[in-house]
Amino acid sequence: MLAVAQQKKIRSSVGIVEPQQVTFYDTPDNKMALECGLSFGPITVQYETYGELNAEKDNAVLVCHALSGDAHAAGYHSAEDEKPGWWNDMIGPGKAFDTDYYYVICSNVLGGCKGTTGPPTENPETGSPYGTTFPMVTVADMVKLQKQLIDYLGINQLLAVTGGSMGGMQALEWAISYPDSMQAVIPIATTPRLSPQGIAFNEVGRHAIFADPNWQGGNYYGSEKPDTGLALARMVGHITYLSEKSMRDKFGRDLRHRQGYSYNFDTEFQVESYLHYQGQKFTSRFDANSYLYLTKAMDYFDLTAGGHSLRENLKHVTAKFLIIAFTGDWLFPAYQNKQIANALRNNSTDVTYVELQSDYGHDAFLVDLDHQTTLISAFLGFLYRKKENNHTIS
Amino acid sequence: MLAVAQQKKIRSSVGIVEPQQVTFYDTPDNKMALECGLSFGPITVQYETYGELNAEKDNAVLVCHALSGDAHAAGYHSAEDEKPGWWNDMIGPGKAFDTDYYYVICSNVLGGCKGTTGPPTENPETGSPYGTTFPMVTVADMVKLQKQLIDYLGINQLLAVTGGSMGGMQALEWAISYPDSMQAVIPIATTPRLSPQGIAFNEVGRHAIFADPNWQGGNYYGSEKPDTGLALARMVGHITYLSEKSMRDKFGRDLRHRQGYSYNFDTEFQVESYLHYQGQKFTSRFDANSYLYLTKAMDYFDLTAGGHSLRENLKHVTAKFLIIAFTGDWLFPAYQNKQIANALRNNSTDVTYVELQSDYGHDAFLVDLDHQTTLISAFLGFLYRKKENNHTIS
Repeated sequence: MLAVAQQKKIRSSVGIVEPQQVTFYDTPDNKMALECGLSFGPITVQYETYGELNAEKDNAVLVCHALSGDAHAAGYHSAEDEKPGWWNDMIGPGKAFDTDYYYVICSNVLGGCKGTTGPPTENPETGSPYGTTFPMVTVADMVKLQKQLIDYLGINQLLAVTGGSMGGMQALEWAISYPDSMQAVIPIATTPRLSPQGIAFNEVGRHAIFADPNWQGGNYYGSEKPDTGLALARMVGHITYLSEKSMRDKFGRDLRHRQGYSYNFDTEFQVESYLHYQGQKFTSRFDANSYLYLTKAMDYFDLTAGGHSLRENLKHVTAKFLIIAFTGDWLFPAYQNKQIANALRNNSTDVTYVELQSDYGHDAFLVDLDHQTTLISAFLGFLYRKKENNHTIS
Repeated sequence: MLAVAQQKKIRSSVGIVEPQQVTFYDTPDNKMALECGLSFGPITVQYETYGELNAEKDNAVLVCHALSGDAHAAGYHSAEDEKPGWWNDMIGPGKAFDTDYYYVICSNVLGGCKGTTGPPTENPETGSPYGTTFPMVTVADMVKLQKQLIDYLGINQLLAVTGGSMGGMQALEWAISYPDSMQAVIPIATTPRLSPQGIAFNEVGRHAIFADPNWQGGNYYGSEKPDTGLALARMVGHITYLSEKSMRDKFGRDLRHRQGYSYNFDTEFQVESYLHYQGQKFTSRFDANSYLYLTKAMDYFDLTAGGHSLRENLKHVTAKFLIIAFTGDWLFPAYQNKQIANALRNNSTDVTYVELQSDYGHDAFLVDLDHQTTLISAFLGFLYRKKENNHTIS
């Protein structure tokens, strides 16, 4: 019976997918010029694709992942794999990013730890992992690498670029860095620049990692990992991903044991137990140094930097926008998403801004999917059918 | 000139104050019965008083401090002392708690580290600090000890009990535990029970202390202190005391150095610098074990516990209430303060609920003082003058 249920789960998804890799910037005279001023290479990119690229190569959607995400956005890695990709309910046949129509691409970001070159990758010049000798990367660098991948896949113009949170930052950066490279942009639960509160929470997480004696300046590969620090960082993160209301609804003040207060320092409330579990679980799948680099990339993200207003920085944008924000998100509050919409409107860019009612907090982009599905299906369907009609006429 | 300015500061305050101490529960047959079931003693209480107790002993106001506060609520400890007590702008001649009329008492809480018996205190039975052998204490235990102090001072009925945050919890507990012992209660920026989000942030802070190798199970006295863990806990705390808006107004995305991003892991944004400074500063004045105990006391606070509703738990309350909440406070949100007011109203208790517009976040009770002063002056003045008239008549 379980096997049948598993088969059914896989059938309703994009199925079993194989991660792929490609390496760029692997000759001495072709390194990637990073925003920090350094040149860097080689860079391997891990990516997955779902659906089929059509003959016109105009049905590709690039999905950008958030801080703790990876290239595995949908489907399963094997018949036994019980956990699908992180946006499995959004990508697949009949879903928001309908793989019966669209060719969906997701790649692990530069600086990540899930197949794309990052701090845990071996530096070919030393034979040891980069650790904190890895160069500081930015969201613009991540996007520059994604552009290499899109070029490599032979795609001249994406149908859409999308992503939530840090993924939304990448989507916005795409529209600015490569304005002719997409028909549409769908930033979700994101911001034109990380708030000081966001920076503050990131710094607390980083400081927890730095303070872990196992961190050892980032040279922990092959020895004990700074799991305590990374788990603590993740615990802080999780509080910010939920709303106060969703925590009340989910845990309340429920205790782990029914007999009442323990009057000691053991994990006592369900909410504490949840945080410890999430923190611990994270250490088995994520690299502490990557966490440091990716949070810095988020801190640096600022579409109002360089003496230009948001509107000025967005002035070359030609893509249509669908911007989705959530009312219960206090880490990337709706008003910050609306600032993007207003700046685009002032530039007479075609923009739809939707504020979805949700109690889930920032996590809504990962879990509150019904309305997102309706919006994105309609938005992409309109764009793509219009194209199809054009194709028929021409 | 500086000396003149200092003299002026001291003159506009309650002046130079001398902390006092008294010891209770110091005989084997008279220990304090704690809520956790243990008996404990001796207990020394550190306290300060401002103004004069009148002959009728009916002008006393008990001020309860918050997590990181202490008995030093107003005035200066010496002529050279540059830093006044934590609520100096609220307590003094002509201030909200006008020492020309009222006798103000503030004591360090049980489990604290500023003179009252707590984890850093020497256990007379062992000659070593209690550390984590200190019993778990609750807000009700803190209040029970304060009641001893009030009895010792010969005060039968307080004019008012007040406090913000954890101090507000104590004020509420007073009204329930000793309903005949006060004329009025003024809880500020508090809650009938700590939210799961509040518990979660507290647990992150505790976990940061536990994870510091210097913590050593709480036996760090006489050796290196767990300053890194305590500073990290305080950094998390500070984020929750400010509002997102106040952080934007105060720091924005300003950098420490004008030349732009450093592209390394040094402290880079002003908001990071502020947090590190606050964290570091805290370690010189607070004990990590006390932080553990006091945050647990806050977690345990729940006026809806024991199968009774908030309204039922408040049914014996006879005091008049003035409840003050702040719109920008997301740690002790206004709606939670309003729940107290509603429960009291349903019991036909005399309650005034005021929601003050403030961007300061939870810290508003310490820094946004003008409206609090107006409200509290009027509320206390009304109570006290009514009493005075009664005195004259009788």
